[in-house]
Amino acid sequence: MNKNRLEAFSDGVLAIIITIMVLEFKVPHGSEWKNLLVLLPTFISYGLSFSYVGIYWGNHHHLLHSVKNVTSGMMLANLNLLFWLSLIPFATGWMGENHFESNTVALYGVVLLLSGAAYYILQQVVQKNSHDIDALRIAFKMSTQKGMISLISYTASIPLAFVDETISFGIFILTSIMWLIPDKNIEKALKNEK
Amino acid sequence: MNKNRLEAFSDGVLAIIITIMVLEFKVPHGSEWKNLLVLLPTFISYGLSFSYVGIYWGNHHHLLHSVKNVTSGMMLANLNLLFWLSLIPFATGWMGENHFESNTVALYGVVLLLSGAAYYILQQVVQKNSHDIDALRIAFKMSTQKGMISLISYTASIPLAFVDETISFGIFILTSIMWLIPDKNIEKALKNEK
Amino acid sequence: MNKNRLEAFSDGVLAIIITIMVLEFKVPHGSEWKNLLVLLPTFISYGLSFSYVGIYWGNHHHLLHSVKNVTSGMMLANLNLLFWLSLIPFATGWMGENHFESNTVALYGVVLLLSGAAYYILQQVVQKNSHDIDALRIAFKMSTQKGMISLISYTASIPLAFVDETISFGIFILTSIMWLIPDKNIEKALKNEK
Amino acid sequence: MNKNRLEAFSDGVLAIIITIMVLEFKVPHGSEWKNLLVLLPTFISYGLSFSYVGIYWGNHHHLLHSVKNVTSGMMLANLNLLFWLSLIPFATGWMGENHFESNTVALYGVVLLLSGAAYYILQQVVQKNSHDIDALRIAFKMSTQKGMISLISYTASIPLAFVDETISFGIFILTSIMWLIPDKNIEKALKNEK
Repeated sequence: MNKNRLEAFSDGVLAIIITIMVLEFKVPHGSEWKNLLVLLPTFISYGLSFSYVGIYWGNHHHLLHSVKNVTSGMMLANLNLLFWLSLIPFATGWMGENHFESNTVALYGVVLLLSGAAYYILQQVVQKNSHDIDALRIAFKMSTQKGMISLISYTASIPLAFVDETISFGIFILTSIMWLIPDKNIEKALKNEK
Repeated sequence: MNKNRLEAFSDGVLAIIITIMVLEFKVPHGSEWKNLLVLLPTFISYGLSFSYVGIYWGNHHHLLHSVKNVTSGMMLANLNLLFWLSLIPFATGWMGENHFESNTVALYGVVLLLSGAAYYILQQVVQKNSHDIDALRIAFKMSTQKGMISLISYTASIPLAFVDETISFGIFILTSIMWLIPDKNIEKALKNEK
Repeated sequence: MNKNRLEAFSDGVLAIIITIMVLEFKVPHGSEWKNLLVLLPTFISYGLSFSYVGIYWGNHHHLLHSVKNVTSGMMLANLNLLFWLSLIPFATGWMGENHFESNTVALYGVVLLLSGAAYYILQQVVQKNSHDIDALRIAFKMSTQKGMISLISYTASIPLAFVDETISFGIFILTSIMWLIPDKNIEKALKNEK
Repeated sequence: MNKNRLEAFSDGVLAIIITIMVLEFKVPHGSEWKNLLVLLPTFISYGLSFSYVGIYWGNHHHLLHSVKNVTSGMMLANLNLLFWLSLIPFATGWMGENHFESNTVALYGVVLLLSGAAYYILQQVVQKNSHDIDALRIAFKMSTQKGMISLISYTASIPLAFVDETISFGIFILTSIMWLIPDKNIEKALKNEK
């Protein structure tokens, strides 16, 4: 019904998630550079998570763009997505503070996987309610492809963290880069629609 | 007058309430799984409260949908609701950190009861200002029924927490499930209205 | 130019200010009632500040309602107001944790006074840019009256805190009640305007 | 496509950044004035950063005003800007807690420089997508001038912090004052446009 409020609430939660992570950088007591250096792993994990939440915001933006009527199912699927995304600051902090130890990297992969799965569900619910626009459907198929690659990558990253955590970390970086490359398909589909 | 700002402010406060609870998960210092396991009760209580705030957001969304003119009384009743909801993160943290001890479960019930009562008041104020739409009135009656069941459940959960806290916890879960089942009545009423 | 963004930003900041205060309730470690009782003064000061920020939100809502063009001066005056309001959580925490000692009550009065003065400035700036609506001007005059009474009360509360802090606290409560009584004048003026 | 959501998300993040800094004022345990005095440097750095984030919000507001279509590049450039701005609370806290020691002042300069550079990039991306409005282009050139002066000032402030940190601090204050003086050029250009 009121798409604006669904967007406003999601924007609010995503804005808080992305900013709350900065609270993990506890201001160090000394003013030496070495006091800052200790925070480097936390900073790297913050940068990674900032990208991921930013990507989700962008995708969410595109996804809801095609929605005309908000259903109760959509609201539930959206809440579910926000729940898993809200765990990113915790997983980020644990990973950063423990210098990317296997366990923590694996948990980060788990949170990404569950968020990705929740996004996939939301996408299905939205798609069911917008069968009229053909062009957008094609775009969705492409975006679903990216989504599938991500889900497989995250799943792989979990056991791989116990082999070598740098492999998993590399997967996280590569997947985020894949998403940061603009999705020409949706934009083209939207242009054709006009 | 300006319904949008009432919605925007409420969305903002609800988004912060729902996300602030995640700050209760203090990142553990060790990287062992057992360090995570300690947080399990906090996680469960977080999940429960996330659902409740999400439900309130959804209901608030439906409730204000029917509003045409915002009155001063509505603004006061809305502030009152937000005040009680803002205590949920505290009650959640206390319950989670103390592994669902009787006192903490009872307090959680009290906060839910006061929030529910505040919602009921807001509903009355809104209803008084929208007597023109008959269909919506019927839907409100149904939703008020659910609200009444909730108020009774919360009231019961408070003394029951001292008998066995799992009973109260079960009541919280069942009540939240009752709300998560989409309210077909409001949606149907709104459809008929069109 | 874009009034909506000024409102959205202000709503965001006010929503965060009102909710951030809840972080001052540090979840106590024990699960006894006496562990909660210790937080009572913090709770009372939270309730008071919640009312004040809520009142400011409502007044801000009314004030900007009459604005047609946002000027740079308005943006500055608005930022100035938000700055002083952002100190309320700090003053609230200090007062609550120190059980309303004279110094802390006086500081609370100072913050209220500076916020009130900043609101008065914003009101002047807005008024200068909306000289066309006569009815609203009358309403403003009334609201300015309330504002003046508040500024005098806050000023009085500062030295009085060193005589007896309950007097100052009483002034805070009475002033907030004065504001919570709906401003019929603005509502009537707006109605006439239509 | 949907400019509103880009604005809403940015407003949300900026509102949180500006308010989160207040959490750095940890409520002191004693109620003596000397307990407050210790927080003076933190307060000064808070005031400075509040102005800077407020200025960025105002400029962002003006910049996006001229945007008609949001592109993927714009979304990325905007996220990049928000990332660097999100580090301001950390840099503020470090500087305030260490009483403006050289290292901390230099880092503050670095964060301002990177934020300024990110803003410059966003400006370029926006400008590329609005070549139709000539007047706005002239205004942009002026605003770019201010931007250039800022970038040079921030760059200078970094080494100067090791000579005398008060020079760098003075630069920060002067630059913020330069920005707080309303940009008549953009407002005039927008007026002509109408």
